[in-house]
Amino acid sequence: MKKLMVIKIGGNIIDDETKLSLFLHDFSSINEKKILVHGGGKLATRIAVQLGIEQQMIDGRRITDGETLKIVTMVYAGYINKNIVAALQKNGCNAIGITGADGDAITAHKRIKGDTDYGFAGDIDAVNTKFIDHLLSENNDIVVAPITHNKKGQLLNTNADTIAQEIATAMSAVYEVTLVYGFEKAGVLMDADKDDTVIPVIDPALYMKLKAENVIFAGMIPKLDNAFSAINKGVNKVIIGKAENIAELIEGKKGTTIRK
Amino acid sequence: MKKLMVIKIGGNIIDDETKLSLFLHDFSSINEKKILVHGGGKLATRIAVQLGIEQQMIDGRRITDGETLKIVTMVYAGYINKNIVAALQKNGCNAIGITGADGDAITAHKRIKGDTDYGFAGDIDAVNTKFIDHLLSENNDIVVAPITHNKKGQLLNTNADTIAQEIATAMSAVYEVTLVYGFEKAGVLMDADKDDTVIPVIDPALYMKLKAENVIFAGMIPKLDNAFSAINKGVNKVIIGKAENIAELIEGKKGTTIRK
Repeated sequence: MKKLMVIKIGGNIIDDETKLSLFLHDFSSINEKKILVHGGGKLATRIAVQLGIEQQMIDGRRITDGETLKIVTMVYAGYINKNIVAALQKNGCNAIGITGADGDAITAHKRIKGDTDYGFAGDIDAVNTKFIDHLLSENNDIVVAPITHNKKGQLLNTNADTIAQEIATAMSAVYEVTLVYGFEKAGVLMDADKDDTVIPVIDPALYMKLKAENVIFAGMIPKLDNAFSAINKGVNKVIIGKAENIAELIEGKKGTTIRK
Repeated sequence: MKKLMVIKIGGNIIDDETKLSLFLHDFSSINEKKILVHGGGKLATRIAVQLGIEQQMIDGRRITDGETLKIVTMVYAGYINKNIVAALQKNGCNAIGITGADGDAITAHKRIKGDTDYGFAGDIDAVNTKFIDHLLSENNDIVVAPITHNKKGQLLNTNADTIAQEIATAMSAVYEVTLVYGFEKAGVLMDADKDDTVIPVIDPALYMKLKAENVIFAGMIPKLDNAFSAINKGVNKVIIGKAENIAELIEGKKGTTIRK
């Protein structure tokens, strides 16, 4: 089976010019076909403040009103996405940047949960594997901004972690997929304060044990639940660690590998 | 030979939500393969003003300093491009939005002219016909934002008229190309103040005559020179008129057709 890497990076890389540049250099050196999903970073918030648009957060999610959607579309799909693509092109990586609207890549619907109005936030319905496979087959690597659409003309702000997971899961039908979550720590840690206590491999049995022993708790639980969910839906393995170490993460020399 | 429409729209359509929506509906109804090149509009200027960034113009061209490049990348490649793509998807047109950096579609270099520093403004070097043909062959219509790159990691602000012309010319190698310039008048006019004096067809002989008689003058001369230049380089015909009338322009019922 053909191999595919789906790699997600967040604000800790996007907001740091030097780290981002080094990461994109290393990303370009990966031989397999690859998809980079990027989050937002602080620029959207900074521009919203400069334009006098108030930002509302509920449970760590930005409430996307019309003006906020405009800003995230500009910053994520415009500034961040195109600068990443240009940097990859410089490194000889023939990238193409997309949102979920482009080629109808990712359809979503407006999030509705009880009484909370999340505004123009999208929950994913479908990933267009044919379109994505088609770009990959033409040797284009893909850079995905966290914006989707509802096929009725509405763009929707969508969580980048979820986009990475949904793409990885959907593409598992035709590829052997490795999903890499870049985050601020070196991996899943035995001691949350010590970056040198990375647990190299976690399978379901170990996960149960670590949860029972309270080694894994709080914010790591949904992250790992998502990782196992991706694996149960066909993703070959999930790697969690610092995107700065992307080469070592893929080789299994750093970070935590989640597998069946 | 396969047919291709390259259609350029400017600020007079982009800045008018109703006109843009109607235009995109009509654009979606065109049966041929098609590429839409859009300019910028007033939003970039408005946001620059709100963010306190001064805009400098020389000979009608925006001087693109670093901060201005950031804004046009956000507004053109992000906000305008993605909203157009989402609207086309709604109309059943499977559009994909790109800049010149995506898929290395359009390479350019920083404009240098005498002592004037235009900043990050790009003059086009090459159009990647293989990449564009490839998207078209997969039944994707293409929406191009007026941003290119230099393959060294630098995005460049690039005139949308020129992008449309260069794409049309380059694609003439594999397609029978019609290039449509949407602008604020109904076509080339016998009397510049009367929209009902459109000259339906101009060939080189008539162009010489109209210039000699001073019917065509000032700003229309470079526009028509560019049109004839495109035709001399292989474009089948160039149509000038109101983008609102796109269906009639293509049928030759409205606007001015420039041909050999």
